[in-house]
Amino acid sequence: MRIAVLGTGIVGRTLAGKLDELGHDVVVGTRDPDKTMASADTDYVGNPPYSTWAGEHPGVRLATFADAASAADLVVNATSGSVSLDVLTQAGEPNLSGKVVVDVSNPLDFAKGFPPTLFVKDDDSLAEQIQRAFPDARVVKTLNTMTAAVMVAPASPGEQGTVFVSGDDTGAKGEVAELLHSMGHEDVVDLGDLTTARGAEMILPLWLRVMGSLGNPIFNFKVVR
Amino acid sequence: MRIAVLGTGIVGRTLAGKLDELGHDVVVGTRDPDKTMASADTDYVGNPPYSTWAGEHPGVRLATFADAASAADLVVNATSGSVSLDVLTQAGEPNLSGKVVVDVSNPLDFAKGFPPTLFVKDDDSLAEQIQRAFPDARVVKTLNTMTAAVMVAPASPGEQGTVFVSGDDTGAKGEVAELLHSMGHEDVVDLGDLTTARGAEMILPLWLRVMGSLGNPIFNFKVVR
Repeated sequence: MRIAVLGTGIVGRTLAGKLDELGHDVVVGTRDPDKTMASADTDYVGNPPYSTWAGEHPGVRLATFADAASAADLVVNATSGSVSLDVLTQAGEPNLSGKVVVDVSNPLDFAKGFPPTLFVKDDDSLAEQIQRAFPDARVVKTLNTMTAAVMVAPASPGEQGTVFVSGDDTGAKGEVAELLHSMGHEDVVDLGDLTTARGAEMILPLWLRVMGSLGNPIFNFKVVR
Repeated sequence: MRIAVLGTGIVGRTLAGKLDELGHDVVVGTRDPDKTMASADTDYVGNPPYSTWAGEHPGVRLATFADAASAADLVVNATSGSVSLDVLTQAGEPNLSGKVVVDVSNPLDFAKGFPPTLFVKDDDSLAEQIQRAFPDARVVKTLNTMTAAVMVAPASPGEQGTVFVSGDDTGAKGEVAELLHSMGHEDVVDLGDLTTARGAEMILPLWLRVMGSLGNPIFNFKVVR
């Protein structure tokens, strides 16, 4: 499948690398490809510049958000929640129309420091904001409830956790569930329509405290039943 | 231990029954004991009137909120979140002072229908509101992330889930962890100070959607790591 992964941070890289490994034709989208490749900056946890990662993943191309989305069958929003709507606007409504848009972002607001609060919650969600802004996209919320490393190696915490999917388009959720299974996820729980993304996004404040308590992010939530 | 369980609903009954079974001296607190015993009403899911339950649990006494709290070493707030502050005020600040107050309530707001939203969230929590209102109480948030039946039978979903504790008083959290262990909980995760209750309370919107997806409330969240 031709997949655009929007975002060059650790989430975008991790998903792009895994999808490339699984044989998909992956293009990473960024605001300005030349600038992204030229940057020598590490991120806030010391991850190397994008160019270093790109050198290790020759099969993954880098393009503008619009070029990446335009060529794709499926688009992954792996950007920070605070810029997701802007990035998807840059990707272009026609380039998202009719396509599955996998939203893995979280509406984190760092304005008041750490831990962040949520800039939308409870009676709305970022996933719904994206769906309203791009009504012809087939938005599916998923994977936002775990750290990037666990997204692509769900058995790595020692035991499989649960991955949730939310969306208004049943066919789109089915395609995403298939993709999740191919990535190793065995327990995919369909929460229902896209309003259920409110629940999936609101686990972040607990996720952050569990990370603080355990001292590392390599964990997941499992629905035992 | 002498334990007051405030609240005669299914959560209060379930906890009171289990604590009685474990050999504690349990008093259930209610607004008006005569009225509670005289009521023939079933609740919204068809649970029998309190008097029926009381007949099956002769060791558990019923008293006013104040009398129950006054005689207790430890107080459990098992009331609906919307009335918790009022109920604890009726229990009386002097009757809570210096005591462990186990808060299992959730700040659910049913004003807009189902699923409920939260009337406090993200930058505050009901547990913190209770602590601020009763600064000499030793508030510990716990058990609010699962249905009553799972609170007292944590292995019943087929696999143990995780129970979280949040509180500013380390000694109080230790006492509550011991009580939780005696109830069968094997995985108690201390999230940290009482602000971490924001995380535990904000899982409710996800809990409600998982219940909707599974079609029943007998499940729990387990932190796999």
